[in-house]
Amino acid sequence: MSAATKVAIVGASGYTGLELLRLIFCHPGAEVVAVTSRTHAGQRIDEVFPRFQGHPGTELTFIEPDMAAVAAARATFAFLALPHGAAAPFARELLAHGLKVIDLSADFRLDDPAVYADFYGHPHPAPELLNEAVFGLPEVYPEAIRSARLVASPGCYPTSIMLPLLPLLRQKLIEPDSIAVSSMSGVSGAGRKADLPLIFAEVNESVRSYGLPRHRHLSEIEQELGKAAGHPVTISFVPHLIPVTAGICTTIFAKLTDSYDRVATTLQKAYENAPFVRLRGPGVSPDTKHVTGTNYLDIGWHHDPRTGRLILQSTEDNLGKGAAGQALQSFNLMAGHRETDGLRSL
Amino acid sequence: MSAATKVAIVGASGYTGLELLRLIFCHPGAEVVAVTSRTHAGQRIDEVFPRFQGHPGTELTFIEPDMAAVAAARATFAFLALPHGAAAPFARELLAHGLKVIDLSADFRLDDPAVYADFYGHPHPAPELLNEAVFGLPEVYPEAIRSARLVASPGCYPTSIMLPLLPLLRQKLIEPDSIAVSSMSGVSGAGRKADLPLIFAEVNESVRSYGLPRHRHLSEIEQELGKAAGHPVTISFVPHLIPVTAGICTTIFAKLTDSYDRVATTLQKAYENAPFVRLRGPGVSPDTKHVTGTNYLDIGWHHDPRTGRLILQSTEDNLGKGAAGQALQSFNLMAGHRETDGLRSL
Amino acid sequence: MSAATKVAIVGASGYTGLELLRLIFCHPGAEVVAVTSRTHAGQRIDEVFPRFQGHPGTELTFIEPDMAAVAAARATFAFLALPHGAAAPFARELLAHGLKVIDLSADFRLDDPAVYADFYGHPHPAPELLNEAVFGLPEVYPEAIRSARLVASPGCYPTSIMLPLLPLLRQKLIEPDSIAVSSMSGVSGAGRKADLPLIFAEVNESVRSYGLPRHRHLSEIEQELGKAAGHPVTISFVPHLIPVTAGICTTIFAKLTDSYDRVATTLQKAYENAPFVRLRGPGVSPDTKHVTGTNYLDIGWHHDPRTGRLILQSTEDNLGKGAAGQALQSFNLMAGHRETDGLRSL
Amino acid sequence: MSAATKVAIVGASGYTGLELLRLIFCHPGAEVVAVTSRTHAGQRIDEVFPRFQGHPGTELTFIEPDMAAVAAARATFAFLALPHGAAAPFARELLAHGLKVIDLSADFRLDDPAVYADFYGHPHPAPELLNEAVFGLPEVYPEAIRSARLVASPGCYPTSIMLPLLPLLRQKLIEPDSIAVSSMSGVSGAGRKADLPLIFAEVNESVRSYGLPRHRHLSEIEQELGKAAGHPVTISFVPHLIPVTAGICTTIFAKLTDSYDRVATTLQKAYENAPFVRLRGPGVSPDTKHVTGTNYLDIGWHHDPRTGRLILQSTEDNLGKGAAGQALQSFNLMAGHRETDGLRSL
Repeated sequence: MSAATKVAIVGASGYTGLELLRLIFCHPGAEVVAVTSRTHAGQRIDEVFPRFQGHPGTELTFIEPDMAAVAAARATFAFLALPHGAAAPFARELLAHGLKVIDLSADFRLDDPAVYADFYGHPHPAPELLNEAVFGLPEVYPEAIRSARLVASPGCYPTSIMLPLLPLLRQKLIEPDSIAVSSMSGVSGAGRKADLPLIFAEVNESVRSYGLPRHRHLSEIEQELGKAAGHPVTISFVPHLIPVTAGICTTIFAKLTDSYDRVATTLQKAYENAPFVRLRGPGVSPDTKHVTGTNYLDIGWHHDPRTGRLILQSTEDNLGKGAAGQALQSFNLMAGHRETDGLRSL
Repeated sequence: MSAATKVAIVGASGYTGLELLRLIFCHPGAEVVAVTSRTHAGQRIDEVFPRFQGHPGTELTFIEPDMAAVAAARATFAFLALPHGAAAPFARELLAHGLKVIDLSADFRLDDPAVYADFYGHPHPAPELLNEAVFGLPEVYPEAIRSARLVASPGCYPTSIMLPLLPLLRQKLIEPDSIAVSSMSGVSGAGRKADLPLIFAEVNESVRSYGLPRHRHLSEIEQELGKAAGHPVTISFVPHLIPVTAGICTTIFAKLTDSYDRVATTLQKAYENAPFVRLRGPGVSPDTKHVTGTNYLDIGWHHDPRTGRLILQSTEDNLGKGAAGQALQSFNLMAGHRETDGLRSL
Repeated sequence: MSAATKVAIVGASGYTGLELLRLIFCHPGAEVVAVTSRTHAGQRIDEVFPRFQGHPGTELTFIEPDMAAVAAARATFAFLALPHGAAAPFARELLAHGLKVIDLSADFRLDDPAVYADFYGHPHPAPELLNEAVFGLPEVYPEAIRSARLVASPGCYPTSIMLPLLPLLRQKLIEPDSIAVSSMSGVSGAGRKADLPLIFAEVNESVRSYGLPRHRHLSEIEQELGKAAGHPVTISFVPHLIPVTAGICTTIFAKLTDSYDRVATTLQKAYENAPFVRLRGPGVSPDTKHVTGTNYLDIGWHHDPRTGRLILQSTEDNLGKGAAGQALQSFNLMAGHRETDGLRSL
Repeated sequence: MSAATKVAIVGASGYTGLELLRLIFCHPGAEVVAVTSRTHAGQRIDEVFPRFQGHPGTELTFIEPDMAAVAAARATFAFLALPHGAAAPFARELLAHGLKVIDLSADFRLDDPAVYADFYGHPHPAPELLNEAVFGLPEVYPEAIRSARLVASPGCYPTSIMLPLLPLLRQKLIEPDSIAVSSMSGVSGAGRKADLPLIFAEVNESVRSYGLPRHRHLSEIEQELGKAAGHPVTISFVPHLIPVTAGICTTIFAKLTDSYDRVATTLQKAYENAPFVRLRGPGVSPDTKHVTGTNYLDIGWHHDPRTGRLILQSTEDNLGKGAAGQALQSFNLMAGHRETDGLRSL
């Protein structure tokens, strides 16, 4: 057996970092050699996350986010699980050290630095890398990911919206202007941080939307939908916070411009070789509880002939296919592992 | 002080019946004199619902659903909290006994028995009463309710959809064909019954839609939206079940056909005297946790100028303004109590 | 009708303060004339707590915790809902202004300042007031509360432990040394604050104990148990945090020293006139869901003849009978209202 | 690589069966060749449990519980995940067919059929097998399990109580008569069945005890504690239902009869080679969220010198180490796999 691929996780103390650790500790061909966290530098992983105690590799100690130290640990791949804006400088440095980088922030998802500045409110921190960065949706860009040095892994809401819509837009089965999206997300998506609106007594027995009307993730969603449609697409998107820890359920309304039957055949064709997209079929409402903890994204759809609309639904684990799992799927392609390695647990 | 109005609750062992009991036990001018339940006949209210123990009036014993016995208890009003189809024969009998009836089922909400047959799959059980029945939305039909013998109190989803939309449709501020609705409901809305998909371990950490694409409540929703628009209206509606006990959050997408500013003024004018509709204002996302246990329906709205859509949101307690509270509000009008009596607890 | 009693709430932005507001807004004989909060000074109550919007009295504006201003608002009673240690200086000042004070912190619950120093780690901040302060358990000290200027309202865990045990210790039905207590509490008991261990994703699907082995509340519990037993009593107490917003369930193990039948008769005699203690009876396990939102404390008990133990259980709302409700009950006694005024909602 | 061990699961449609399936589908050396379920006979596994869709092996079809058919499927091991009383006849039949049997019911846990009759209310259904059956606690009886034909895997509460207590009782560090246990369990422990008290709206925001004062599991707990102590032991045990899907937290009170320091050394010695018992150490309160989904049982303990008591706590997943995981651990020993095979996921 060949040696395991050595990986680093930069910013490993949030929920996405935690999920990356969980997945990589069980990956048959990868080994964590460096983990960084300003908050936990000097502490062992299994001390910060007692769930890991007793598992090989979890005695590793968090270090400060020093990219030279990461490179010195002989990592050949680095995952960046950092807030938007913080990832870009580290990515630049890691690339210079010869590592390949999978960035889970929004820093490299947009082709156009002007769109970044518009949605994020500041100039892009590393525009010279945008051209090289590959959008890390393995179902859409597998070959580019395989040969990439820098992958920008898309976010949880975008993944849940793009995977059902892209094949239908490519085949012009729906009217782009008619797309309206309502998503419901678990609280882990808001991060592992002490915020009053996130405490249990504020979230329990509560539902509320947020980030209206122009959520930042719309920038990457519309970029990819536009590529599929062949022209710019603008959609409405309303995310809601619901009292579950994990899971996203996305419901999409769109006017059909072709026969309903083509929806099924188009989706089947698009995902026949995609190991992590499960088509639940027409007339089925997918349920988040069947995907939590996994890298699956489930899709179901209904015809609403009274209004001429298609109702498309998807479910995923926001930390799985919506973040860490998807990043690991790209890693598998980049590092020459099987696409499903470390992602088959149930 | 005048004597309390004597009321009966027919079918008082579900969650709606339980909420009606809770509200009426605290009502300053009403008294429960009869409660029926096939399941619990012979048991005391406070035995079936330990929460009520020690409260005056809760020692009353459930009886079989015998309408003559209800009349003999000298009730002058009866609330019917029964499944669809079961209410109509009881309503007919109670009216013959001279009682006024507030029906919380769907039996008398539709003007047209053909629409009932189409959506509910069987002929209407009492078509001769449809003409007389008043749609029990106090914000829309207050005068008709005051003088009604039979009120059909609308359901939880319809209330959350109609109250935000009706004034805008009347003023032609939105395009009826563009309306798409995504609602999230607590589990109490599915009833107090032993169903496998409702048990805790199936609902917890889960989100899923259901009843697609043609939920029965669409019939009453579209009837009322059509009256407001002045022509038939057909909408898309996707309800979701989320792990909360109480509360509905409804998100509505609709194309604006007029200036966004008119949304606020139109809603303010429509509800300036409505004690239970709270306009949270533009740019505000209402939260179910601020309405649970109350009779309030909160409305917030956002402009999405990129797509030309209005995003309208409402929250209510599905058992409050969505069921028992709303029925009690109609009762107050019918019985000459103040509209807010018994509905002001926080 | 006589004028309403004017009250102030000092520290009204936590969950206890919020519950006090909710209760007093619905109290038939009390009126809130001042609310203080460092965090929210200058904001209206219904702005900070949208649940209250539209309810009379909720447009009042939070002020800084300035006791002269509180007195100037003509309050005759003040509730202190502050952290331990912070309440005492305000209490001293308010008493000097002629107000009566109901303190919900631990500052005045202990007779002996040395015990306070031992359990709280600093000298008592106002020892001169300890002699005058009355322990605010209305079921035990009703007469002293009626005539008190300063009442120390006991905490949530202590109330759930004392009310079941005190009558049995007085009658020497159980062996004091054998008492061991396991309590489960909702998260609102930990306060309305941004702490990482309190966020939803940390609390949901989790159970854990904390504060072992010598929780601060043991000081007041053992003081009162000792008075009932006639000699010092030391017990074991393990509190657990569970994923509910509200409610405490306390399970007590104790060796019986007399016949089991005397448990029922002793509890019945002790609480026959107590409107908020409900004896569920032998063989009954009380459930928190029947007391949340109320001022009730429910008690059930079982005989374990195999081990000679009595298993006593109580449930209450930690913010109700465990905090705000109990304080309001003392207020009712002090102000000459009926004991149940404002505390009868279901 | 040698061929996978062929296993059958009899009664695979409850939560325990579902967890067994989940674990075995990921086991490197086991293969499911038969699954039975009266309810789901004729349906595919991945149809009944959509979570499994797309995973190899999950297209298998449920069959009726026909043991000859199970044997014909060439299974060499069978797991029985059935209600108490229903397992024994199947076990007898499977043994006759030459299979080895791991029973997850209570049918073979007790040495003495009279104790069974006393606690379960009917004569033992297969007393001739009691002598041969091995109590399936791998940390205590590893050698007997390795060579057993029939293993009686202990239940969730017993495991959480026995593993912390057994070493201390063997070393006589605690007083057996002083043991009192309070446990909190997730709702999946009550089974996958449509019962009104288990529906979401009844369990959410609720805590309650049940099964008092003589829970059936006391029989097996006291049998094993008695063996460790060298004489009969009788304890008090109060289980509570809390609103989580998975996890048990057990808190044990016991009088120390020796120095507190010996607790740590005794537990360390007892479990130094046990891969699934994690000693969190003195002063630590274990949290269920660190063990859900795993086969770990975590133990923490505190000294309460004021009362002379030891407070012992354990956490486990009631479906993991409390049921399916533990059964698989025994299977690994019986089948010659590594003890940790298929049980290392995080």
